[in-house]
Amino acid sequence: MTEVTIGIAGLGTVAQGVLELIRRNGELMRQRSGVTLRVARIASRRERPEVDLMGARFSTDLNDLLNDSELDLILELIGGDGAALDLIRGAKAKGIPVVTANKAVLALHGDELLAGSGKSLLRFEAAVAGAIPIIQGISTGLAANRLQSLFGIINGTCNYIFGKMESAGTPFAEVLAEAQALGYAEADPSFDIDGIDAAHKLTILLGLGFTGKFDLSGLHIEGIRHVTLADIQFAKELGYKIKHLGIIQNTPAGVEARVHPALVPANALLANVNDVMNAVQVVSDGAGQTLFSGPGAGGEATASAVLSDALALARQLTSSNGLFIQEADNADSDDNSLNIVPMSEVVSANYLRIPTVDRPGVFAQVTQALSEFSISIDAAIQHEAAGVEQPVDIVLLTDDVAEAAMIAALERLEGLDIVAADIVRIRVAPDF
Amino acid sequence: MTEVTIGIAGLGTVAQGVLELIRRNGELMRQRSGVTLRVARIASRRERPEVDLMGARFSTDLNDLLNDSELDLILELIGGDGAALDLIRGAKAKGIPVVTANKAVLALHGDELLAGSGKSLLRFEAAVAGAIPIIQGISTGLAANRLQSLFGIINGTCNYIFGKMESAGTPFAEVLAEAQALGYAEADPSFDIDGIDAAHKLTILLGLGFTGKFDLSGLHIEGIRHVTLADIQFAKELGYKIKHLGIIQNTPAGVEARVHPALVPANALLANVNDVMNAVQVVSDGAGQTLFSGPGAGGEATASAVLSDALALARQLTSSNGLFIQEADNADSDDNSLNIVPMSEVVSANYLRIPTVDRPGVFAQVTQALSEFSISIDAAIQHEAAGVEQPVDIVLLTDDVAEAAMIAALERLEGLDIVAADIVRIRVAPDF
Repeated sequence: MTEVTIGIAGLGTVAQGVLELIRRNGELMRQRSGVTLRVARIASRRERPEVDLMGARFSTDLNDLLNDSELDLILELIGGDGAALDLIRGAKAKGIPVVTANKAVLALHGDELLAGSGKSLLRFEAAVAGAIPIIQGISTGLAANRLQSLFGIINGTCNYIFGKMESAGTPFAEVLAEAQALGYAEADPSFDIDGIDAAHKLTILLGLGFTGKFDLSGLHIEGIRHVTLADIQFAKELGYKIKHLGIIQNTPAGVEARVHPALVPANALLANVNDVMNAVQVVSDGAGQTLFSGPGAGGEATASAVLSDALALARQLTSSNGLFIQEADNADSDDNSLNIVPMSEVVSANYLRIPTVDRPGVFAQVTQALSEFSISIDAAIQHEAAGVEQPVDIVLLTDDVAEAAMIAALERLEGLDIVAADIVRIRVAPDF
Repeated sequence: MTEVTIGIAGLGTVAQGVLELIRRNGELMRQRSGVTLRVARIASRRERPEVDLMGARFSTDLNDLLNDSELDLILELIGGDGAALDLIRGAKAKGIPVVTANKAVLALHGDELLAGSGKSLLRFEAAVAGAIPIIQGISTGLAANRLQSLFGIINGTCNYIFGKMESAGTPFAEVLAEAQALGYAEADPSFDIDGIDAAHKLTILLGLGFTGKFDLSGLHIEGIRHVTLADIQFAKELGYKIKHLGIIQNTPAGVEARVHPALVPANALLANVNDVMNAVQVVSDGAGQTLFSGPGAGGEATASAVLSDALALARQLTSSNGLFIQEADNADSDDNSLNIVPMSEVVSANYLRIPTVDRPGVFAQVTQALSEFSISIDAAIQHEAAGVEQPVDIVLLTDDVAEAAMIAALERLEGLDIVAADIVRIRVAPDF
């Protein structure tokens, strides 16, 4: 087992998410990767006595991180391109690996920070689309492909606003106020709704997958202030939804890179990415159309990406390469999570299609039989018979019921003389 | 620059995809990863004189791969659990890293093959969901999370069949015959439509992310033969789509693992994964709900995943860790793909909402103005005015037009005295 010693810059939502995930899942990470992450030092301008620092030393001076020779790895979770930039530069000069969640510093200084040893020392999965492993997906998952285009819903605030305008018919200003109240939009929302945040992220995706340069200045940037309820409704009438997209396209003339609202066909997967979720669709020559979606923000979601990078760097440091696979069951553990539950105990709601003879009282007999197994009914459909002597389908959605009870009830139903043919049973997928 | 020497077992669709991607994108892979992949030897029971072997030595004896001391890495692209198993065992004994696309051998012998050095020597991104980097996504992208559940559309044949039954109203047997004609289903389709293929893949996901054991026997497995057109239509009426799902759920009693048709809410992202596409949705404690979708089969799509693994192993071998980032522009290159196209040259279709005074001839004036810039109209909506003296919205979808022409046309339109307020223009997203 290898221990890797971590320093954290910042103590906001993401840093607190990192501490919480290490506390909760540190042992799981060790099982998978062989690496124990230990937070030894935290530096933040603002003290937060309410946060459990897990025994880490605390100071308000970021330089203490650079001067602590015990640290194997620094997590830069401050944001912005001031102190964060100085910290990453300082760490690079000393050869200390850094994980950052900072899109602005990469969009503005990525070329400098990633030059030379930067490629190996700096990781930034959390800087684009939060929890979604899109940086890894592009950098290594699709490494054998020429990327042809990329379409990203990479600002959750804009996606939330368009979604609410569409689903609730609420005007822009009202949804924005609501998003601010919910914490989905900042008090000064311009960074999100004028497209700057999305442009920072698109710059990173552009450099990583297409041009090798992190150059914000090449992008066309538009926000969403001009889109009204009427536009969303007209778009719907035309078969589209409006999404705020980052778009990169490889064309014979070069690469197009732009951020603006766009009409997307309503049945496309991207059009169905809702609320504050993010998604990035990549089209490449070998892998075709791949899409990655997930939460684009939030403390633990962002921390998940930060720690994915931390473990990857830790693996580099310790040369313990290879896949991360959960450790198998061991006899000492009383953790049930490694046991497979027998199917008979699995609980599902069920769709039942019961072909019956067309006779009065049939529906009552069916529901009576089910109630004997304490199975209740959530929804029912019965159409008129297609003709005399034709069987009639009774379609039911049951409440949740254990597999064993459902199977017993099905046997009972199949024994009824009113049942005219095989019953079809399809489980409803669990909530997800 | 480092050269890594590869041997390939098999010369079918996937192996040919690997050769084609290396031929087409080998230089790009080198730019990104610093690694040159050279195919030195190919062994396959069947000779295929029509395939360009790129200078590799060929033989029909798989043992030649194990005995060739020049090989750094073997790609096992035979499939099945006979000769492939022997080859992977032999390579492990000699410490040669292997990339495999073989789900059956992992589902049946994963515990043995991944024990000890296997974790570092064996990679299998292509074994689950083709081009989608889901193994990497779970193993490293979500490494800091406790996985709570997983829902996978991991058999493209079943997804194609259900999709066609729904969209075209074609019965099961007919769609199956069509899928066989298109090459989406085998002559003997039972492996796909009885759920075996999906069960193999789910076993791998279960072992990797949940239990650490690769044990097919714990799974409940159902296929799709019993689902009729009537069921798909009733499900639709109830607000659902039917998908063939692999489901893993962490419950207090242990892990549920099952493969069966399931009703999925029609507006869920998973329900909108169509045709032969695959998707895996993972819910985890930190990252929340993440979804990965893409082509689940096909020569180059599978080859993309194989080569992603090959590059990862090559990086391990050569210790050239770090991100794969495209090399930036260099002056010698006449490759346009690194240049960013000015926005004025970008071509889009456009949604225009033009508030106009309610007066005869207004529509003609608008279309006339657009035609001066050679902009033609694909669709138009105009509702009656809400009342006397109320402006009327003319909504248009234009054909593709360059940004510069669209901007000039908008200026012209805004100068018309019939235009009553600001025009809203939203681009239609490019085809994806």
